[in-house]
Amino acid sequence: MVNADLLLARMAADRARVDRCLAELFEQRNVADLRLEQAMRHGLLVGGKRLRPVLVYAAGRALGAEDDALDIPAAAIELIHAYSLVHDDLPAMDDDDLRRGQPTVHKAFDEATAILAGDALQTLAFEVLANSRSPRLAALVRCLACASGRDGMAAGQALDLAAVGHAPSLEALETMHRHKTGALIRAAVRLGGLVAVAEDDPRLAALDHYAAAMGLAFQVHDDVLDVTGDTAILGKASGADAARDKPTYPALLGLDAARERASSLIDEALDALSPIGEAAAPLAELARYMIARDH
Amino acid sequence: MVNADLLLARMAADRARVDRCLAELFEQRNVADLRLEQAMRHGLLVGGKRLRPVLVYAAGRALGAEDDALDIPAAAIELIHAYSLVHDDLPAMDDDDLRRGQPTVHKAFDEATAILAGDALQTLAFEVLANSRSPRLAALVRCLACASGRDGMAAGQALDLAAVGHAPSLEALETMHRHKTGALIRAAVRLGGLVAVAEDDPRLAALDHYAAAMGLAFQVHDDVLDVTGDTAILGKASGADAARDKPTYPALLGLDAARERASSLIDEALDALSPIGEAAAPLAELARYMIARDH
Repeated sequence: MVNADLLLARMAADRARVDRCLAELFEQRNVADLRLEQAMRHGLLVGGKRLRPVLVYAAGRALGAEDDALDIPAAAIELIHAYSLVHDDLPAMDDDDLRRGQPTVHKAFDEATAILAGDALQTLAFEVLANSRSPRLAALVRCLACASGRDGMAAGQALDLAAVGHAPSLEALETMHRHKTGALIRAAVRLGGLVAVAEDDPRLAALDHYAAAMGLAFQVHDDVLDVTGDTAILGKASGADAARDKPTYPALLGLDAARERASSLIDEALDALSPIGEAAAPLAELARYMIARDH
Repeated sequence: MVNADLLLARMAADRARVDRCLAELFEQRNVADLRLEQAMRHGLLVGGKRLRPVLVYAAGRALGAEDDALDIPAAAIELIHAYSLVHDDLPAMDDDDLRRGQPTVHKAFDEATAILAGDALQTLAFEVLANSRSPRLAALVRCLACASGRDGMAAGQALDLAAVGHAPSLEALETMHRHKTGALIRAAVRLGGLVAVAEDDPRLAALDHYAAAMGLAFQVHDDVLDVTGDTAILGKASGADAARDKPTYPALLGLDAARERASSLIDEALDALSPIGEAAAPLAELARYMIARDH
């Protein structure tokens, strides 16, 4: 079903594309504080897979946007993702020393610098977006901000911290994930779409349905990988969530039911794409990839 | 020279006006995480004087903007200021337990919540700005982001942390203040101006010159107050900066020369206003107030 080689090649190309845009943000400038600048770069580099930019490109292309117009939203959402990882890793939050085998920002620098680097990465996301020359700038900024802040990612992280050590219901777990990771995945897809079409285009609603189901499947599959995955491939200790007493889908549902849940969410995501037709094929492949990946 | 009663009454009215706008951001909404929401409110409440919103209103009116159009930029810049205070107070940064006699956010809640509340206050600033319906939204977002991030406030905080325990030159001290507090004061004045006129209007350059000089005078006067001020009126221990081995203008220049420096900067700020004429009188009064205040 999936042309895996083509999908992976396209993902690698998009990753390289957004990495070029992100690197350019650190070139030819008067740096006010070198240490802060280096910490920001470090935080961006440990970001990794660039899944959110890949989704911006795929969603935008599906509705007819040009690649050049997608670069800025792709870079902006990765900057938000990177800021959130830098802050999530802090001692007062998840207290992680390593991310993708590299020291986290507060380990490579110090805690104060990590707080400021995360802050400045968030700011840079909005600065970059303001340079997009999009006629729909207000919608783009609103989309990114709503997904990141107290109604999205920041609330998800707060819900996640509050849940450690408790045994939440499936509903509470889904609410947490819908905010913590789901909101930004939906924003990635919507930002791409908004580059191509106006806010009232019905295809945006179809994309949003796709993104909501796919984002949750992504998280369920992450939880499954935490149980079944190979530590070397994951880049973090397998079983880490359970060891930390973090709630997971396999813990709540059992492993098989968790796998089935991820699979049925992907079916839902694929169904949602039907109003978009042939042009949505790469989005469908990405959705299938989300629950086939081993890290 | 200054009609002090009128100035103070106008400042109080503007403070009340922006406080209403800020309070509305927390009304009639579905709250995802109550603790995060409460911590954000707490961070906004300890913000205090609302000097930056007061500057937005004064600068905007000087160029002919309507009050209603200034509310959103005024609220946005106060949200940025509040986020920066919440993060600056953290144990890894300035480690302050009290602000304006109230427990800081990480003391009233916890460190993780304070990090997230600061993050979400920053995000909210850009979300609010996106709702401004301004034809110059890109310029507004760019102005706020440039002043807040790695070229502005965040860099200033990094420079400040790096300077503790060292004896910097006067030049290094000014560079730090120009970023840490100066950038946001200039942004407040520019945001107000941008509501009224386009980016290439020469009056914006006059306003910027005013704001740069006034912002530095504000900081010099703060340092003077730290030496001469009454602890009860300041709301923090007088002599706190010196006790922390923080560099200050009086330490570098001596107290009298620091006072003279503040005074000559205010003269420079007043001169800069001349292209704007009579309409700039409230801005001139504000500048004089900056070095006359006792807290």
